[in-house]
Amino acid sequence: MITAIHPIKPVTSTRLADPCVMVIFGAGGDLTKRLLIPALYNLVRNKLLPEQFAIVGVSRNKLSHDEFRSKLRQDIQEFATVTVESSLWEWLEQRIYYLGGDFTDSKLYTQLQTLLTQIDQDYHMPGNYLYYLATAPTLFCGIISQLGSAKLTQETDTSWRRVIIEKPFGRDLESARTLNNNILGVLKEHQIYRIDHYLGKETVQNILVFRFGNGLFEPIWNRRYIDHVQITVAETVGVELRGDFYDRTGAVRDMIQNHLFQLLAMIGMEPPVSFEADAVRDEKSKLLRAIQPFTPELVLNNTVKGQYSEGVVNHAIVQAYRSEPRVAKNSSIETFAALKLDIDNWRWAGVPFYLRTGKRLPKRVTEIVIQFKQAPSLLFRNLTNQLTPNLLTIRIQPNESISLQFGAKIPGPAVQMGAVNMDFCYADYFGSEPTTGYETLLYDCTIGDATLFQRADNVELGWSVVNPILDVWQAHNQEFPNYAAGTWGPVAADELLERDGRQWQ
Amino acid sequence: MITAIHPIKPVTSTRLADPCVMVIFGAGGDLTKRLLIPALYNLVRNKLLPEQFAIVGVSRNKLSHDEFRSKLRQDIQEFATVTVESSLWEWLEQRIYYLGGDFTDSKLYTQLQTLLTQIDQDYHMPGNYLYYLATAPTLFCGIISQLGSAKLTQETDTSWRRVIIEKPFGRDLESARTLNNNILGVLKEHQIYRIDHYLGKETVQNILVFRFGNGLFEPIWNRRYIDHVQITVAETVGVELRGDFYDRTGAVRDMIQNHLFQLLAMIGMEPPVSFEADAVRDEKSKLLRAIQPFTPELVLNNTVKGQYSEGVVNHAIVQAYRSEPRVAKNSSIETFAALKLDIDNWRWAGVPFYLRTGKRLPKRVTEIVIQFKQAPSLLFRNLTNQLTPNLLTIRIQPNESISLQFGAKIPGPAVQMGAVNMDFCYADYFGSEPTTGYETLLYDCTIGDATLFQRADNVELGWSVVNPILDVWQAHNQEFPNYAAGTWGPVAADELLERDGRQWQ
Repeated sequence: MITAIHPIKPVTSTRLADPCVMVIFGAGGDLTKRLLIPALYNLVRNKLLPEQFAIVGVSRNKLSHDEFRSKLRQDIQEFATVTVESSLWEWLEQRIYYLGGDFTDSKLYTQLQTLLTQIDQDYHMPGNYLYYLATAPTLFCGIISQLGSAKLTQETDTSWRRVIIEKPFGRDLESARTLNNNILGVLKEHQIYRIDHYLGKETVQNILVFRFGNGLFEPIWNRRYIDHVQITVAETVGVELRGDFYDRTGAVRDMIQNHLFQLLAMIGMEPPVSFEADAVRDEKSKLLRAIQPFTPELVLNNTVKGQYSEGVVNHAIVQAYRSEPRVAKNSSIETFAALKLDIDNWRWAGVPFYLRTGKRLPKRVTEIVIQFKQAPSLLFRNLTNQLTPNLLTIRIQPNESISLQFGAKIPGPAVQMGAVNMDFCYADYFGSEPTTGYETLLYDCTIGDATLFQRADNVELGWSVVNPILDVWQAHNQEFPNYAAGTWGPVAADELLERDGRQWQ
Repeated sequence: MITAIHPIKPVTSTRLADPCVMVIFGAGGDLTKRLLIPALYNLVRNKLLPEQFAIVGVSRNKLSHDEFRSKLRQDIQEFATVTVESSLWEWLEQRIYYLGGDFTDSKLYTQLQTLLTQIDQDYHMPGNYLYYLATAPTLFCGIISQLGSAKLTQETDTSWRRVIIEKPFGRDLESARTLNNNILGVLKEHQIYRIDHYLGKETVQNILVFRFGNGLFEPIWNRRYIDHVQITVAETVGVELRGDFYDRTGAVRDMIQNHLFQLLAMIGMEPPVSFEADAVRDEKSKLLRAIQPFTPELVLNNTVKGQYSEGVVNHAIVQAYRSEPRVAKNSSIETFAALKLDIDNWRWAGVPFYLRTGKRLPKRVTEIVIQFKQAPSLLFRNLTNQLTPNLLTIRIQPNESISLQFGAKIPGPAVQMGAVNMDFCYADYFGSEPTTGYETLLYDCTIGDATLFQRADNVELGWSVVNPILDVWQAHNQEFPNYAAGTWGPVAADELLERDGRQWQ
């Protein structure tokens, strides 16, 4: 229950996006219609786009500007997160252009250059271009190389050129390094925006504000007061139509190396000296670097690999992973992974971080639980066993919220203690207007704020942590499947905590 | 919003009250019918009274047992906090006895002895007697002395004798000492239960559990992290029919010395070595002893005295204090008091405690606000002025709750911070069944737990803090009235904080 809605005081005035043209490669694909255009529409609604703004969709098919606009006009009705107001949509639609052609053909980039020059003239724009690579990862290097050859990536004193790259960013340390090197042959690091849409979520961003904007939490945010940390990203879905992709990827590559490590870094990092991108990303890298490297022995002891069999999720019988479409019948790819990490620095030494993620788990939830050490039991000696520890739970989805479990006296003449929660739900304060998760990220890119994007070293450090795990797992044959769909993963995942005297929340 | 009601785990089994006879002196008065009998009825409902239990009402009038029972049977219908179940009431009613007579006449005590012996035999009881002095304070010493002479206060190896004394306990340090000395001439300290019904409130008791049963709060509960503490006990009522009492008493004697100092002690004290009465009361005394004594200069600078004029409360025009019935037309008694206290110990030095209480204020609320120091502003440099500090608010009444204000990111692409609350309401977890506030206290007395009662030194220390204030106030003439009914007291009360760069919440 909210006793009173506290008035919200906005503390910075809102800056408009820089005048720019956003060029979407792969504009005919799902990402564009489902997420990018709806996100841009929401930016229009929030009055964050300037008059000097345009979009160029680039894709294989031959379409006129109007055909493309008319396609998006239909799509937005289906995929907008809110009811579309026609005047706002028209504002956006008239700024949309289209270019069809082959991404590997240099002619396409000459045409793009001509179109961009024309748009710059029409809108009196300085030549700021934001390229969004919404294509298959195999095309990234080629497109960037062509953009470079066409001088479309060259910045001037008065204009910027930026590239947003979708994950997956490599499939191991070596491939990530190669990809980074190739891209960095054309672009400078500050031009590259490696996107992870998890970081567009409000609660994820709020972790920084929560930790460093409040005097209360930082003093107890360390090994002296924290017992351990749990990070769970659970999905109920299986691999759906992505069987061929997933069967080459698995949970560690798909989720741990990026999403879970991002959350880990936000929770564990030292206070940055500013919220500027490199200050924040420096601290993230420091945290990842402080993770105790996984020796083969640590992999065997502190990681759990799982794959689901047939089972029941949301009251429906679902098939085993190996029976999913486009998955190998003898696949040994993991659909579940759990890790215990140690972070060998002054803040965290001795505080285990338990991470888990999986498909076909009993519920969809992304949650960070920080368990504090128990109060000295002296005062509650005869109740000791039932003293419940303080838990701070940061829920990313669904129902974004922060809650604190603490012990309170149960009313009545006798002294009894119960565990209760203090709760804060985002929706109670801020409404629950749905977003795509891309609004913030697109906006940040247009104003040159790379805080929520991964830097090359962030990505490579993530890979360097998980690489030994993938190597050892590949070398050791294990029996699969080892958990039923609709359960919380293999028994070994529970044992990982139980042998430390702990349990998953 | 409660995301999930956490299962409550009872952690101690409930012990029944000791077999005993409760003797109420002043059984014909308001306290008995409005609070004591309804509280005893609630203890019956909660199955906390044993079969071996009886009540003897003692008062001036001549009534038979049955006449007294029949009077209470009518009263309970009016004053019970819940609907009365007749079977439960009958269980209690048949245990009620009556004795009429003059409290100053030794014959009454001989008759009481006979009656108690008879009841002990009938119920096979060991001779445990609990005397409740629900009379005018002027009668306390006489009754205790008579009980002593009649050997009714003498304990044996197998029986106890306890006395509950209502406040006010003295009207200054000297009179409190005299009263304590007189009583301690007859009783041992462990037999004396000085009651303050504020301590029967769940949230007050919960302060101890909250502070010492959780690992999270104690580490930050000190001068390093806390900026200041506010304690407010605000009433909307005036003096009602208690004008003659109040005009001899005033806010400091009526509220500060007891209620507010109890809250202060609970918030400020060091962890006791156990929850046993003397361990807790030792710590309370230590805290009161650490308050910087009020020199005349400190009184003039750090205290505010107020008296209300005519004004508007709850949309109704109400009269000035001096126009209330049985109040002197030129009264200079205070209906409002505010103090700034310094506690000169290692935990609190430099952390001011601001206390205020008053009648005819805009709303009825008892609340403790702990304001934490601001986070270093480095990260929020351009937002510094609007960074809101963390506030922990413990509300005692109405709507008992604990809430924590913290800064969160306002959703949206731009970085904006807002103040939000994490809330815990007692009623959400435990229901809001009304009680009298006396249940716990009566029960504790029957099991010999004096934790929530004041020891002689607690009372005297309270008086020794406020005595210099009362002395200086009496010597300095001030213009009254100085605040309008329906406002938050005199302007000086706001200035008390404003000159420290703070404000009342």
